[in-house]
Amino acid sequence: MDFKDLNTQSTFTAKELEDRRKYFEDLIKRRYFFNQGFEIYGGVAGLYDYGPPGCAIKNNLLKLWRDHFILEEDMLEISSTCITPHSVFKASGHVDRFTDLMVKDVKNGAGHRADKLIEAFVENKLAKKKLKPEEVKELEEIKQKVETFSAQQMHDIIQKLGIKSPDTGNELGFPEPFNLMFGTPIGPSGQLPGFLRPETAQGMFVNFNRLNEFNGGRIPFAAAQIGLGFRNEIAPRNGLYRVREFDMAEIEHFFDPQRPEHPKFKYIKDLKLPLLTAKSQEHGDGSVTHMTLEEAVKSGTVSNETHAYFIGRTFLFLVEAGVNQNNIRFRQHMSNEMAHYACDCWDAEIEFSHGFKECVGLANRSAFDLESHTKGSGVKLLAARRLPEPRKVTIIDITLDKKEIFKALKADGNELTKLIEGYSDEQKAELMKKFETSDSVEFNINVKEVEKKVQLPKALISFKVSEQMQQEEKFVPYVIEPSFGVGRIFSAILEHRFRMRDEKRTFFHLPPKISPIKCSILPVISHEKYNDAIHKLKVGLTKVGVSSKVDDTGHAIGRRYARTDELGIPFGITIDNDTLVDDSVTLREILTTKQIRIPINDVFRVVSDMADGLITWESVLAKYPLFKPNASEEN
Amino acid sequence: MDFKDLNTQSTFTAKELEDRRKYFEDLIKRRYFFNQGFEIYGGVAGLYDYGPPGCAIKNNLLKLWRDHFILEEDMLEISSTCITPHSVFKASGHVDRFTDLMVKDVKNGAGHRADKLIEAFVENKLAKKKLKPEEVKELEEIKQKVETFSAQQMHDIIQKLGIKSPDTGNELGFPEPFNLMFGTPIGPSGQLPGFLRPETAQGMFVNFNRLNEFNGGRIPFAAAQIGLGFRNEIAPRNGLYRVREFDMAEIEHFFDPQRPEHPKFKYIKDLKLPLLTAKSQEHGDGSVTHMTLEEAVKSGTVSNETHAYFIGRTFLFLVEAGVNQNNIRFRQHMSNEMAHYACDCWDAEIEFSHGFKECVGLANRSAFDLESHTKGSGVKLLAARRLPEPRKVTIIDITLDKKEIFKALKADGNELTKLIEGYSDEQKAELMKKFETSDSVEFNINVKEVEKKVQLPKALISFKVSEQMQQEEKFVPYVIEPSFGVGRIFSAILEHRFRMRDEKRTFFHLPPKISPIKCSILPVISHEKYNDAIHKLKVGLTKVGVSSKVDDTGHAIGRRYARTDELGIPFGITIDNDTLVDDSVTLREILTTKQIRIPINDVFRVVSDMADGLITWESVLAKYPLFKPNASEEN
Repeated sequence: MDFKDLNTQSTFTAKELEDRRKYFEDLIKRRYFFNQGFEIYGGVAGLYDYGPPGCAIKNNLLKLWRDHFILEEDMLEISSTCITPHSVFKASGHVDRFTDLMVKDVKNGAGHRADKLIEAFVENKLAKKKLKPEEVKELEEIKQKVETFSAQQMHDIIQKLGIKSPDTGNELGFPEPFNLMFGTPIGPSGQLPGFLRPETAQGMFVNFNRLNEFNGGRIPFAAAQIGLGFRNEIAPRNGLYRVREFDMAEIEHFFDPQRPEHPKFKYIKDLKLPLLTAKSQEHGDGSVTHMTLEEAVKSGTVSNETHAYFIGRTFLFLVEAGVNQNNIRFRQHMSNEMAHYACDCWDAEIEFSHGFKECVGLANRSAFDLESHTKGSGVKLLAARRLPEPRKVTIIDITLDKKEIFKALKADGNELTKLIEGYSDEQKAELMKKFETSDSVEFNINVKEVEKKVQLPKALISFKVSEQMQQEEKFVPYVIEPSFGVGRIFSAILEHRFRMRDEKRTFFHLPPKISPIKCSILPVISHEKYNDAIHKLKVGLTKVGVSSKVDDTGHAIGRRYARTDELGIPFGITIDNDTLVDDSVTLREILTTKQIRIPINDVFRVVSDMADGLITWESVLAKYPLFKPNASEEN
Repeated sequence: MDFKDLNTQSTFTAKELEDRRKYFEDLIKRRYFFNQGFEIYGGVAGLYDYGPPGCAIKNNLLKLWRDHFILEEDMLEISSTCITPHSVFKASGHVDRFTDLMVKDVKNGAGHRADKLIEAFVENKLAKKKLKPEEVKELEEIKQKVETFSAQQMHDIIQKLGIKSPDTGNELGFPEPFNLMFGTPIGPSGQLPGFLRPETAQGMFVNFNRLNEFNGGRIPFAAAQIGLGFRNEIAPRNGLYRVREFDMAEIEHFFDPQRPEHPKFKYIKDLKLPLLTAKSQEHGDGSVTHMTLEEAVKSGTVSNETHAYFIGRTFLFLVEAGVNQNNIRFRQHMSNEMAHYACDCWDAEIEFSHGFKECVGLANRSAFDLESHTKGSGVKLLAARRLPEPRKVTIIDITLDKKEIFKALKADGNELTKLIEGYSDEQKAELMKKFETSDSVEFNINVKEVEKKVQLPKALISFKVSEQMQQEEKFVPYVIEPSFGVGRIFSAILEHRFRMRDEKRTFFHLPPKISPIKCSILPVISHEKYNDAIHKLKVGLTKVGVSSKVDDTGHAIGRRYARTDELGIPFGITIDNDTLVDDSVTLREILTTKQIRIPINDVFRVVSDMADGLITWESVLAKYPLFKPNASEEN
């Protein structure tokens, strides 16, 4: 068995792949990378806990993300709350549209996600292989497009194919939208409805004015947030892939739509990436085009330079984190699957052993979010751009007789005031015009989510018109949002970095930056004469910022190597009798299992530099004498 | 005005203190350290967002915590979910006992936390100063003990003092327990009730067996978790002090109750700390005793060495993080305020401008949690200790006729089986004895949280007795739990580190490890001739791991210094014309505002070493020539 990856399916037979998956899952479980949450209580679907090595890898992945994006690009990192009031998600569109279609078992009421149910049924049918070519074609088409179907279309397919409730065989009801947000009332009276955020993004949008001010009003700038998201999935599955609580890392890059260039685009414009365009999916053969980012922008394939810049940076991040570069592609959303907020969206998809899966979303959300929250809150979320030369503008100031408005309209007056105060200059001009020809104007306001018409008499509003020289103009920034599913990338790294020497010696060959621990310290046998050397190595490694793990148990050295390999520890230092004589140790690397002899005083810097990616194992191999252990020591 | 801290009240008059608080809050808000969540929607009580400098400080604080505890002590860090099924919190006691007493306004139904309402009323009354000495004494006593009162006692006091609903003046109802956990149903059917965890601890308890196995069965060991907690506070207040969503950092140190010693206690046993014992609060004058940790253990003041070890380590952490060491004390819980799980509990209390507040809880939870979850789940959570010599033991194996039990008892059979399978050896022996004299035994089982009696006939259970030589014995570990409120410590650091040069120049003098950014880079005036030097400094600092912020705006250098001081950036590098000639820069420190002249090639290592705490500013001042800026440059 060679060292090829779990997911390069071509090199393994189906049987081999299935075996590898078993060994992979056994290793994950046995060394506690992660486990299902609340196992001792029978577990809860869609909730997972990270054990010590998994947690360390996740932390390292987040640190790499912070270094790669936040620090390198001087982004403004914030940390907002998961609990979010209803009004925010009403404005953002999530209350109405963040849903999946669910069908219920008509007898026991159990809910199933309609698209996944159809997909599973179709896959199962296709696997049986007794179909006519035209049947296969029809089923393949359903499978490919099912996510984009309407409720009626899904219902029709369920009826046509005769799909029943999978556990009971009962009939299924009509697909209804099920909101994926977890609801929770806030406060003791329970009167303030709230949700757990399904994404961290809204925390950055609602704080836009604060962030813009913090940044001195300069645009573009990016906010970033690392934190939890929650989605009450109807059908959680595939381990860490579709879960109900997950780590996210999101960026909101705010920019002037008149200036979608990115100053650092030049550094990555020549990066050639596999792009699966909407066109290829909708009208073509679904094949991937390899294109430089510069070509992608020039040809209009990607919406703009800034969007393309983040696609490139995302690719570089994934590769540095340990994802196989040959198993990454960027897929553009088709027009019928685009989220309600996006005007162009690309997913970084990573190929798992189960196929390509979305791991990063890169959406051009245009001005949707800031406009929605301006409308929802009545607070303007605007940036300013300097005009090439000052210009004369007409300013309309509106004064409302609030006292009388509240008297006349009661609580509705509040909504009406908020609405008018949020008006743009154009809307103000339009309103003034209406009042010129009418004594009363009708407004549509939202009261507890119901649209309502109210009248405002001319006597309660006044307009003051003046002229000003303007140096700058206000605008609503556009936003590019790269959104990373941390658990998904974590899973991909483990799959791609899984290796087998033989059936008993499986391990993870991780980039040192991602490894949970960088170095093991192993006395060749368990004996107290080695304690001083162990202590010296531990302290020395800690001093150069290298985490280490001592294994001085009585097991054979080969077994202890195998155990540190399982955790993905890239380097191992062995102390033996020569160490006590000449202060030298052996240093071993996980993939080659080769060892060199090296003075203790050198080993700290060498391991630290390899862990930071400054030097390679090959260069170290070339510099120090090879050490040949007994056959019994390493097998 | 001097540089004394906000909270050393003695050095300021009440008026000065109030002024300082205003400047402090202005700085927090103006430079976006944190803000109330969802401001543009009117805000939500108890929810706060961290802006860029606050988020960076919080991250640095968590990194320091991870280094100080997890890495230095080789703890097992895990990451478990916030969403938790009902069964877990039923077993842990939170469903029944994680409550505060709430009184409702009898007319509008608004809820108020009873103890806080009484406290506020009493404080208000005391402030009026027209009371007789005996009245003052009575009120002081109520204020001190109100948190420990029963519902009936609170009701009596409310009636006696004539306390009304604060907003309306209406009568108040009888205090009722209000559960502080946020509830949220899990899954599409809504049939699995869940909660957001109010602490991260349970995630470590329910995974005990996994952790114990990962650690090779060696005990003691500690698990640790950094993550969110959620509490639906009735009366959130005091900024970040009592909030509804918060960062926690918790440790569960599992140990053998027969061996409560800690191998590293010797390193901190001589640390002398201010202890406020339960005795002093209950029967004494409430004064603090200064005692070494060794004395505290020997005198039985602290429950054991391991408990005392973590008290000492907590103190060292808080001081390193920037809390004033003179404003920390450790207060022991009185017997009537102890949580349901604790057998001895100490709070690290930090003195804020509003008084001492709990910031870290250090509880000896004994075997409570592992026993509760063993009972709740039927899965034994046990460690093993090696016996001094092998011993002969009697083993009782129980076989249940599950089929017949389920037939006879239906769903109750499941509960009964789980109960018996979770029995200890002692319980098994007892049960066998009962069946010797009886044909049927009655059991108490829990069905959907209602206790229920069921009968098990002798025919459905059998016992097999054998003898074994045992090398080790199983036991339920005890646990010491240090639990850190991150936002509270964050607040304390900001209060203690707030400084004023004058009313326009306020700043934070933070430990460099905690500072949001370590170094500023300022050209003396804004000019493109400095761009190369800026770039060189930025790259060089990044290479040695020092974060930096460039301010090349056109503002006067003094104003730019003041702005970086506001963010708590400890070091500043200025580029001037001499830089272009001799490759030297000036380096400034925040508190002294002194500057030295230093070669660019030296400055990277010097700043990096100061940021890591390896060298002091004083030693740098002694080594390099002092630089005297123009009067106009620094004021």
